[in-house]
Amino acid sequence: MHHYDFLVVGSGPAGQRAAIQAAKLGKSVALFERQGMLGGVSVHKGTIPSKTLREAALYLTGSDQRGLYGHSYRLKEDLTIDDLTHRLMITLQHEMDVIHSQLVRNNVTIIEGTASFKDEHTMITEDSNGDCEEYVGDKILIAAGSRPVRPDNVPFDDETILDSDGILGLKKLPASIAIIGAGVIGVEYASIFSTLDAKVTLIDGRPGMLGFLDNEIVDELSHYLRKGNVTLRLGENVGHVVKTDNKVSIDLESGKRVSTDIALFAAGRIGCTYALELGNAGVQANKRRLIEVNEHYQTNVEHIYAAGDVIGFPSLASTSMEQGRSVALHAFGEPSNSCPEHFPFGIYAVPEISMVGMTEQELTKKNIPYEAGVAKLRETARGQIRGIEGGMLKMLFGLEDRKLLGVHIIGEGATETIHIGQAVIVLGGTLDYFIDNVFNYPTLAEAYKTAALDAWNKMS
Amino acid sequence: MHHYDFLVVGSGPAGQRAAIQAAKLGKSVALFERQGMLGGVSVHKGTIPSKTLREAALYLTGSDQRGLYGHSYRLKEDLTIDDLTHRLMITLQHEMDVIHSQLVRNNVTIIEGTASFKDEHTMITEDSNGDCEEYVGDKILIAAGSRPVRPDNVPFDDETILDSDGILGLKKLPASIAIIGAGVIGVEYASIFSTLDAKVTLIDGRPGMLGFLDNEIVDELSHYLRKGNVTLRLGENVGHVVKTDNKVSIDLESGKRVSTDIALFAAGRIGCTYALELGNAGVQANKRRLIEVNEHYQTNVEHIYAAGDVIGFPSLASTSMEQGRSVALHAFGEPSNSCPEHFPFGIYAVPEISMVGMTEQELTKKNIPYEAGVAKLRETARGQIRGIEGGMLKMLFGLEDRKLLGVHIIGEGATETIHIGQAVIVLGGTLDYFIDNVFNYPTLAEAYKTAALDAWNKMS
Repeated sequence: MHHYDFLVVGSGPAGQRAAIQAAKLGKSVALFERQGMLGGVSVHKGTIPSKTLREAALYLTGSDQRGLYGHSYRLKEDLTIDDLTHRLMITLQHEMDVIHSQLVRNNVTIIEGTASFKDEHTMITEDSNGDCEEYVGDKILIAAGSRPVRPDNVPFDDETILDSDGILGLKKLPASIAIIGAGVIGVEYASIFSTLDAKVTLIDGRPGMLGFLDNEIVDELSHYLRKGNVTLRLGENVGHVVKTDNKVSIDLESGKRVSTDIALFAAGRIGCTYALELGNAGVQANKRRLIEVNEHYQTNVEHIYAAGDVIGFPSLASTSMEQGRSVALHAFGEPSNSCPEHFPFGIYAVPEISMVGMTEQELTKKNIPYEAGVAKLRETARGQIRGIEGGMLKMLFGLEDRKLLGVHIIGEGATETIHIGQAVIVLGGTLDYFIDNVFNYPTLAEAYKTAALDAWNKMS
Repeated sequence: MHHYDFLVVGSGPAGQRAAIQAAKLGKSVALFERQGMLGGVSVHKGTIPSKTLREAALYLTGSDQRGLYGHSYRLKEDLTIDDLTHRLMITLQHEMDVIHSQLVRNNVTIIEGTASFKDEHTMITEDSNGDCEEYVGDKILIAAGSRPVRPDNVPFDDETILDSDGILGLKKLPASIAIIGAGVIGVEYASIFSTLDAKVTLIDGRPGMLGFLDNEIVDELSHYLRKGNVTLRLGENVGHVVKTDNKVSIDLESGKRVSTDIALFAAGRIGCTYALELGNAGVQANKRRLIEVNEHYQTNVEHIYAAGDVIGFPSLASTSMEQGRSVALHAFGEPSNSCPEHFPFGIYAVPEISMVGMTEQELTKKNIPYEAGVAKLRETARGQIRGIEGGMLKMLFGLEDRKLLGVHIIGEGATETIHIGQAVIVLGGTLDYFIDNVFNYPTLAEAYKTAALDAWNKMS
C-alpha cells in the first residue's frame, strides 16, 4: 500500500495540470494512466491528431494559398494517408516526451495501469501480470476523459464504419465520407476531408450546426462547407446503416439514401467512468457517465474532485487545464478562482472559428442593446497578400457603455487573434480601445480596427 | 483656381486616412498624387511589396515547414523572379483599387500630378501638357513620404547596384547579395534573400542591428540570420564600391573585400520634400529633408501639417495612419488624441519580430525593477504541429505592481500575436491576467501563458 497526498486519474490536460500544480505546492502526487496513453485522449485521439491532420491537409494540398496560386501549385498530386500521418507521429511522440518530462521534473509519480476505486480513499491498479497495487490518497481527482458514443444499431467495423477514435487508423484516404453528427468534431473532420477533396455528407438530426456560435458565423461556415463540396443534411435522422461490398449505405428516416466509402460517427461522447467502479467510493455519475461537480469541481464526495471532459461542457483542452489547476489549489487550501467567465472557444475547422463573450442571439434574449461592427479578412492588406478569399470578424458593443461584449471570428488565424478581443473584454475595454490604438500593418489583426470603425460609424 | 477645405499631398497611409477623415467631417478635400502612384511608397515600393515578396518566398520555398517536411517538399525547385512577382502584381493592383474606391466613395477629389507650394495657402500642379492648375486650401497636410538615400560615391546602375526602390525591378534572383544598412529594411531583405537561398552579407557601420529592439531579441535574430547563411559585418564601414564584369566588389574600410552579384543600399531615407518648394510656404525642413512638427503634427506654419514618413520616426504605415486621422480631427476642431503611447513595432523579417512597450535595457536605464518571463514557441503544442523550430516570446512585468511593461516576440505570427500584449498593457493589466485566463489550445498565443508562469515562478 502506498500513500500520496493526491491521486490523479488520467493524464490529459486536466490531470497533468492538477498533478503539476499540486507537486509545486510540495504535495506527493501519483498519476494513473494506461500504458502508452500519456497525455490522454487529447494527445492520442482528439485535439492534437485532428489539428495535426488539419495543418498537414492545408499545407500539402496548398489549399490555403489557392486564391493566389491555383491548383497548379499543389504540393503533391496524390496525397496518401502516409503523407498526412508522417507529421502526426512526430507530433505525438514529442507531446508525450514533453508531458513525461514535465511530470517527472515535478516529482509526480506516473503509474501505468487502469485504476479503480476500492473505497473512497483507495484506488487499485492491476498490472499485466494480474498483480494488484493499492494507493491511498487524501484527495483524489477523476480526470478520466471521455470517449465516443457508439450507437447500438450501427455495425462498426473500424475500417469503413468508424468513430472519431478510429478515423486516425484509416488505411487510405476515402473518396467519399459521411459524417454523422455536426458538433465540433463532426464539423472539423467534414472540413478537413473536404480540403482533401473527398465528397463529404454531413448529417445531424438537429436543424442547425454548433448552436452555441453566433448565427452569422454558422451561416458563413455553411457557405464555406458547401463551397467545399460538403452536402449538409441537417434535421435528418439516421435510420439503417449497412455495409455493402466496398461501400457503406446510410438510410435517412426521410427516405434519402447516402452511399459512401466510409461513415464516421461523431454523435456525442460519454465519460470514461465505467471501469472506475465509482460506486465503491460513493461518487455519482449521470446517464452519459459524466460526473456532476460544484463550482470547486468537487463531486458529491467532498475530497474527490472531477475535471475535464468527464464533467461535460465545455470539454475543451484549454478549460480543462484551468480546471485541473483550480482543483489542486482548492484541494490543498490555496486561493483559487473557478474557471474564468470569458474563455475563448476554438473550432479547428477549415476555416478556423473562434469566439469569446456573447452572441447576437444571447444579447437579444437578455434584452441588452448592442451594435455590431464587421470586417472582412480579405479587405485587410495582409489578407490580400496571403490571398485570403473568405473570413470575417464581428464585434458586438454595448450601446450604452460601448463595452466590448463579444467577438466572433471565422477565417485564417481565428483561434489566435481571438485573444486580442478576449483581453479587451476581460479588462473592461470599450470601442474606443480599437479606435484609439494602432495595429501593425499589414496584419489580419487590423480587422479589429476596421470592425470597430464600422460599429463607430453605425453608432454615431 | 479651385478652393478646398483641405489639401493633402500624398496618398500613402497618412494622406489617405487624413483625406477620408476630413471628408467624413463634411469637408471638401483634394488629394495630390503622381500618376500611377496611388497608395504611395507604402503600396508601390515599401511595405506591401516587401511583405508580399516575403510571403511568396516563404511559401514557394516551403521554408516555413522545413522542420517537418525537409527540403524535398519544396514547391518549386528553380524559383524565378516571375514566381515571386506574380503575386505582387495582383496585390498591388488590388490595393490601388481599394484605396481609389475608398477615396472616391468619400468624395475626395484625386488630382494626378506633382504638387508644389505657390504660397502658404496655394499649391500648383503641372500636368503632362505643361498646363498649371492652382488649388487653394484652408488647411494643408504634407504627407509626401520618403525615399532612399543614395550615397554620392556609389555607382548606382539599378541593375546590380540598387536601392530598396530598385530591388523590386530585379530581372533575376541573385545567388549572392550584399546589403548595406542593417536597419529594418536591410534586415527584412537580408532574411528574405536568405530564405531564397542567396548568400547574403549584411553590412552596417554601427556595432549592432535595430538598437530599439530588446537586446535578447536582436541576439536571437542574429542567430537565425547566421543559421540562414547570412554573414554579418557590423561595425564595418563601406569604402569603395565598383562594378566588375558581372560582379560588384565592395571594399570595407577594415580592408575586407566583399564580392557579390548585387549590392542593395538601404542606408537611411530622406523626406520627399525637395519638389514641394517648401520655402514658398515658409515651412522648414531639416538636413534629411524631414519636417519637424508639434504634438498636433503642425509644422512651423500653423495651418500646414505634416505626417507619415516625412516627419521621421517611427515611419510605420500603422502609426502614419493614426497621424493622418489625428491631423484631420485637429485641423477641423474635433477632439483628437496624439499618437497612442503604446504602439507595436512590426518587423517583417524571417522570422517576424514585434514589440510593444519597453525593452529590458530601457527599464534598466530608468531604474524600474522588473522580472522577465520567457516562452519558446516550439514548446507550444501548435508550434509542434506546425514544425516550428525557433522563436520566443518575452514579457516584462513590474516587480512591485506586476503590471505588464513590455512584450517582445520573434517568430511566426509575431506581428499578429503582439496585439494581445498590447491590449493588456494599454488597459493596465498585470501578470494575473495571463495566469487567470484561458487560451485556445493549441495556439501560439499560449506562449503568453507559459511566459507568464515562468515570470510567476521567478517572482514567488
